[in-house]
Amino acid sequence: MKPSIPQGTRDFSPSDVRKRQYILNTIKNVFELYGYQPLETPSMENLQTLMGKYGEEGDRLIFKVLNNGLHDKKDKDKDRLNEEWNKVLEKPYSSPILTERALRYDLTIPFARYVVMHQNDLAFPFKRYQMQPVWRADRPQRGRYREFWQCDADVVGSNSLINEAELLAIYHQAFHLLKVPGISVKINSRKILAGLAEVVGHSDKLTDITVAIDKLDKIGWEGVAKELTERGLTEATITFIHQYLNISGSNEARLAAMESLLESSATAQQGIKELRDSIHYFSILKKTEWESELVVDFTLARGLNYYTGVIVEVGTTAVKMGSIGGGGRYDDLTGLFGLKGLSGVGVSFGIDRIYDVMEELGLFPEQLASGTKVLFLLMDEAATTQALHYLSALRDTGIPADLYPEKAKFDKQMKYANKRNVPFVAIIGSDELANGVITLKNMAEGTQSTLNIGQLIEALS
Amino acid sequence: MKPSIPQGTRDFSPSDVRKRQYILNTIKNVFELYGYQPLETPSMENLQTLMGKYGEEGDRLIFKVLNNGLHDKKDKDKDRLNEEWNKVLEKPYSSPILTERALRYDLTIPFARYVVMHQNDLAFPFKRYQMQPVWRADRPQRGRYREFWQCDADVVGSNSLINEAELLAIYHQAFHLLKVPGISVKINSRKILAGLAEVVGHSDKLTDITVAIDKLDKIGWEGVAKELTERGLTEATITFIHQYLNISGSNEARLAAMESLLESSATAQQGIKELRDSIHYFSILKKTEWESELVVDFTLARGLNYYTGVIVEVGTTAVKMGSIGGGGRYDDLTGLFGLKGLSGVGVSFGIDRIYDVMEELGLFPEQLASGTKVLFLLMDEAATTQALHYLSALRDTGIPADLYPEKAKFDKQMKYANKRNVPFVAIIGSDELANGVITLKNMAEGTQSTLNIGQLIEALS
Repeated sequence: MKPSIPQGTRDFSPSDVRKRQYILNTIKNVFELYGYQPLETPSMENLQTLMGKYGEEGDRLIFKVLNNGLHDKKDKDKDRLNEEWNKVLEKPYSSPILTERALRYDLTIPFARYVVMHQNDLAFPFKRYQMQPVWRADRPQRGRYREFWQCDADVVGSNSLINEAELLAIYHQAFHLLKVPGISVKINSRKILAGLAEVVGHSDKLTDITVAIDKLDKIGWEGVAKELTERGLTEATITFIHQYLNISGSNEARLAAMESLLESSATAQQGIKELRDSIHYFSILKKTEWESELVVDFTLARGLNYYTGVIVEVGTTAVKMGSIGGGGRYDDLTGLFGLKGLSGVGVSFGIDRIYDVMEELGLFPEQLASGTKVLFLLMDEAATTQALHYLSALRDTGIPADLYPEKAKFDKQMKYANKRNVPFVAIIGSDELANGVITLKNMAEGTQSTLNIGQLIEALS
Repeated sequence: MKPSIPQGTRDFSPSDVRKRQYILNTIKNVFELYGYQPLETPSMENLQTLMGKYGEEGDRLIFKVLNNGLHDKKDKDKDRLNEEWNKVLEKPYSSPILTERALRYDLTIPFARYVVMHQNDLAFPFKRYQMQPVWRADRPQRGRYREFWQCDADVVGSNSLINEAELLAIYHQAFHLLKVPGISVKINSRKILAGLAEVVGHSDKLTDITVAIDKLDKIGWEGVAKELTERGLTEATITFIHQYLNISGSNEARLAAMESLLESSATAQQGIKELRDSIHYFSILKKTEWESELVVDFTLARGLNYYTGVIVEVGTTAVKMGSIGGGGRYDDLTGLFGLKGLSGVGVSFGIDRIYDVMEELGLFPEQLASGTKVLFLLMDEAATTQALHYLSALRDTGIPADLYPEKAKFDKQMKYANKRNVPFVAIIGSDELANGVITLKNMAEGTQSTLNIGQLIEALS
């Protein structure tokens, strides 16, 4: 049998892991700088915790874990088990009898579940970040995996727009540190979208309007107009929505234009005020060296339904690629588990897409190629003890060092060093051994020098 | 519904995550120092990759993932699916038809699978480390979880005993850095155990002898003797085994005694030579400040069957606790997947037990309690802008800082600061605002000082 891995999953080889860790650590350090605390939840949740939280399609895409030892229950419960099995086979159905547990589908629902379970111990506002894999039984395709990492920061228990501003600052600072160019963070408010629906007299069709607007990038205005017509909106309403979508100019010009367009909606006015405050707080936090920009974009809708306030989305103009991050405020996430009235706001980084952007633009630091700085070649059995002494001295000063652990031809050892991508090779032949020195070869430049151990440590530090 | 998590799984709250990360990062840095490279494999493997690799009991404890969309196949394949279902129900049976995928049970088999799949791209010897969760449907109990982390370093493709020595050095250095006292690393060789079986004329009973010796700690010599009798060994043989187990003295005295006891076995002599060489290489790598010890212990057997050479196990005398790490050399791990003749050696760190030891002895650095160094209290709405400026200045110098994001009573904000475990609180009331200063309170000592922002940065750096 030729070994393989499940479709839509990946092995991460050493250089992949290093690059991914570089992204995750950079973002993690920014989260910590802003007072966010790490949380980790189990890979498996109770099936009931997840079901019904992601829509019908989501329910189907959750990976369910078969209960172990079903045969031990067959004497007592055979009919019931068979009945459940038939349900699983006959229709899309998730059985809490056969599959008590399921794999985490995102980090948001486990977070809400955690907050509700620990509500009496937590200090609110509770700011947490979480970086863990999630699993979805989606059809795999380019850039879509069945196991992938999410990277979220959320704060619950505070209505202050300072939170929105800090999350905006986190986006700008993280992408600044990752050196991703052309970063643009779009910002809007669900309250303004709700105000639009209100003003055109169709608060009942808020979701239809939001979903249609969300497709603007993909299907253009004509497509949106067509969809709105199909949803039963009049030509006058559609013209008004067109007006809404066409607002342009500077951020302040846009906000002022929207203020008068949706003058009659208190909800919209509140949304505009919240955007202004968020932008104001953010302008205090923003550093001049962050070259990214913040753009008020009323066409931004964000597909997911639970947002109720400010919404954001990050993209880069440097590469053709969808959004690499997004988030927003939600008013009642923990309400799903019985804890009402806790408002939250959060953002997410799209790690896989950020990886692709950075790979395409060559943004990863060169030293990530190998963790090992120098490889000793064993040219002479007699040099083993000496090599181990040198290795130990290098590691003592924190320099990752390794040796080819057995005698082999020089070419074979050099080929190994090349494959390992080590920047330096240290050679101890019989001459070097006799003179107490080491020949150091710079692999990129092809240059060589003869050094004693003190000089070697200095050269590699 | 009151939310809960599956039995045997855990949420890791912020301070738990920090402590666990402290252990993992310390070990990871040591792995890197010794030239080991990070690898990550998918959480789900094909069922067939895992089945039959962990014995019958292991097969039963593997978590299997139910295929999604079984109902879509029911028209074409209903009989076959029902047949498989009946097998699952009737006996311990794992169905590749119903459950193509399963959760990783350890890190060793996925590593072997990875090496075989990538054999043409890898540079051998391939040194990898891997720190990821694994899942087992074991009955949960104190210290035994259904989801837990493993932390392994292995090298394949080299017979050199320098590898053994380096892995010993990794253990000693990692526990030295973690400051765990009373560390003792036991070392033995499966070849010596094989030599014992050979000398008593029972090479056929090597597994029985190994398994019995492995229980010495738990059931004492009488228990072992009883078990050996039950396995059909004669009194003379058992007496000889007793002699074997009673060898004591310094490491060199033990090796010399064993050399003569098992003089007639070439295998045993080879095992003794390998121990001597490993210990010799290790003595060159070992630093005097590592207070841990290395002990030749012929009673060490290690339950698992795939070891063929040097075996090791780590414990601490400072706490009553089982082994906190172990490993050894295996000759043919990748042979399971068709790649023969690749020898490997590896060690594993028992993260959960190390955590418990360190918690019990209070070994975690105090600053892990909170990642946030200072929390600003918002005593006056007018001070918001000023607080944001200060926050931004602190974060610029790399100091994790946060603020209570809305106006609230002083007591409420202080209670929050206490719950968050922040070491310092910064207060900007109207006086401070007027004078351009900040009141800094040291939470542990209860002391206060009045500083400007430059002094504040200095005080917290």
